[in-house]
Amino acid sequence: MNDFVYNVPVKVYFGKDQLGNLGPELKKYGKRVLMTYGGGSIKKIGLYDRIVAEIAKAGLELFELSGIEPNPRVTSVNEGARICKDKKIDVLLAVGGGSTIDATKFIGAGACYDGDAWDFFSGKGQITDSLPIVTVLTLAATGSEMDAGGVISNMDTREKYAAGHPSLLPRVSFLDPTVTYSVSAYQTACGAADIISHILEVYFNMDPDLYMLDCVMEGLLKTVVKYAPVALREPDNYEARANLMWASSWAINGFIDGGKASQAWSCHPIEHELSAFYDMTHGLGLAILTPRWMEYTLDELTAPRFRQFACNVFGVDQNMEPMAAAKKGIETLAEFFFGALGLKRSLTEAGVDDTHFSLMAKKACGGGVLAGFKPLRQEDIEKIFRMCL
Amino acid sequence: MNDFVYNVPVKVYFGKDQLGNLGPELKKYGKRVLMTYGGGSIKKIGLYDRIVAEIAKAGLELFELSGIEPNPRVTSVNEGARICKDKKIDVLLAVGGGSTIDATKFIGAGACYDGDAWDFFSGKGQITDSLPIVTVLTLAATGSEMDAGGVISNMDTREKYAAGHPSLLPRVSFLDPTVTYSVSAYQTACGAADIISHILEVYFNMDPDLYMLDCVMEGLLKTVVKYAPVALREPDNYEARANLMWASSWAINGFIDGGKASQAWSCHPIEHELSAFYDMTHGLGLAILTPRWMEYTLDELTAPRFRQFACNVFGVDQNMEPMAAAKKGIETLAEFFFGALGLKRSLTEAGVDDTHFSLMAKKACGGGVLAGFKPLRQEDIEKIFRMCL
Repeated sequence: MNDFVYNVPVKVYFGKDQLGNLGPELKKYGKRVLMTYGGGSIKKIGLYDRIVAEIAKAGLELFELSGIEPNPRVTSVNEGARICKDKKIDVLLAVGGGSTIDATKFIGAGACYDGDAWDFFSGKGQITDSLPIVTVLTLAATGSEMDAGGVISNMDTREKYAAGHPSLLPRVSFLDPTVTYSVSAYQTACGAADIISHILEVYFNMDPDLYMLDCVMEGLLKTVVKYAPVALREPDNYEARANLMWASSWAINGFIDGGKASQAWSCHPIEHELSAFYDMTHGLGLAILTPRWMEYTLDELTAPRFRQFACNVFGVDQNMEPMAAAKKGIETLAEFFFGALGLKRSLTEAGVDDTHFSLMAKKACGGGVLAGFKPLRQEDIEKIFRMCL
Repeated sequence: MNDFVYNVPVKVYFGKDQLGNLGPELKKYGKRVLMTYGGGSIKKIGLYDRIVAEIAKAGLELFELSGIEPNPRVTSVNEGARICKDKKIDVLLAVGGGSTIDATKFIGAGACYDGDAWDFFSGKGQITDSLPIVTVLTLAATGSEMDAGGVISNMDTREKYAAGHPSLLPRVSFLDPTVTYSVSAYQTACGAADIISHILEVYFNMDPDLYMLDCVMEGLLKTVVKYAPVALREPDNYEARANLMWASSWAINGFIDGGKASQAWSCHPIEHELSAFYDMTHGLGLAILTPRWMEYTLDELTAPRFRQFACNVFGVDQNMEPMAAAKKGIETLAEFFFGALGLKRSLTEAGVDDTHFSLMAKKACGGGVLAGFKPLRQEDIEKIFRMCL
């Protein structure tokens, strides 16, 4: 078991009636607030007005950057960083899902950097600091509200890359499950697939585990499996939305990693190519890829872990032969994604053909090896893409 | 479900080779360090020398307060606070288990207070601030390394009370499982009982739950049930010691509370009377009390929760009739404490008779009602004490 450092000093206000704390929290970091958000959905649900009122009540000065894209673009990041510099912004307030929060993190870093924010991803520059970030989460999915990383796309170069830095960790995050009542069934399903994938990327790992964290991961997985279908049927079920929201944060805030953070993830880098080339919703790409990736990596060596997953998450019979139990677990997960969550089950259904598979596979492994649960080279990744057709 | 705030900004260095970070971390808070510890066990295992060397390497000035008691006394706290004031201490380093860390918390608070530290418990004074606290944990039990509270005894008045304040939260805690290899079987067993009790005090709660946190609590319980007996058989089993150590922190750092923190605990306040009157080891008192408290609180209303505990932690058959399953779970827990962990099963065995039951029961509920899972008055608590004879 590897040593590790646990350090997640994000203060989380969880629940229905917490926004009254927003003004005082922002005020701790200064007077000039840049609020970032995506389309107009936060206006439709009244969240925008509530936040503007809280900021006014606290006597803070509000600036805005709207229109942050799903799969957020580096162009938005650069625009935000420019506003921060021009307007001498003290603190950033991201109101949205993972895309808005991720973009805001790099806006914060860009505000403390002299150059193009794409430098953080191309390797030309490094994040050294960020403006303080506060978030109001509107989608249970990426966990960006409680971690120190993010993902940005460059549509010019068809690239989607991740970066992180301790300064990008939000200081405070507001998680109000009722804000997600209006999230569409499709986005709810994609969010659930994203949460599950975050857990599985850690769960399927060759490093020795803390049994305790296995139990926690299985508990988080069971939570999503239980409550995502409820949220689809009853969008305003508080219990369902609350469980999904809190699970999304804990799936990726570092707690479940223990000492396993050194091993690369598998499905995320592969999926990022789908988002970069086709602007596909991240969670949909993960849902299509994950069961096929599991089938591809299942062998005598990995079967016991797949069996554990099958038994402890989906209640597959403990007495079943390991390989059969492993397969049953993978099938059950696929049925969860494509049946219970109603997501498209193939790249073909999602409108993707094999045109770019070779290049995408090469990029996903950086031309070398993706050193995850089972090491994957370009040809392996290409095969997995083909299995998804 | 109640709203809640999650805020646990403790940085944890977990693992075998982390002490090299101790000097740099202490240095962030100043130059003059007061190291607090209990008996000589940290010298026997070489931990004292390693810490002194790290402090010297960082160029810090070291002061010491040793002899902090199990069930730490307010006299030690006052002595520590006096040293802090006299020597202008910048940062406290607690090296030990919950007793040492708890005492150190109130030393830190006492150093910022003009008066006797007992005032914090008698209601005469309030904690407003503390010196920064760093801990090196040597016992998996109380979780004090990752929470903002503690417990102190006054042997003059036979009182044992808890207090807390955000400033008491350790800034940094070092959790090295190998340091606990030398913990005796008895202390290991008592620590395990304490961890289990911390979880059960939250688990058995009438507030509605987050299912996700139920899963986490059941996972933590299974972890202790699995690994405490391993640690007894093989004191230097890293996996066992690591799981117990990390579980101890997460049992009480606030994560599992969700919105349920408003409800009082039951077994802890009752046990505190045993420690206050008989200086009993906290974990032993909890182990004796818990199964009897469960039997006393089991009724038609509480049975479903006991059944869930029985099935999800001890694998009791899901098809069993709820009341029977609940009883089976309670029996299995008792057998775990008194069989697998080898703890004394009654107050009589522990040398306690009914002399003070009436007064202890009155003090445990403050002369009113202990508003826990099932409200308990003086006469209820006295009955529970008698069931433990």
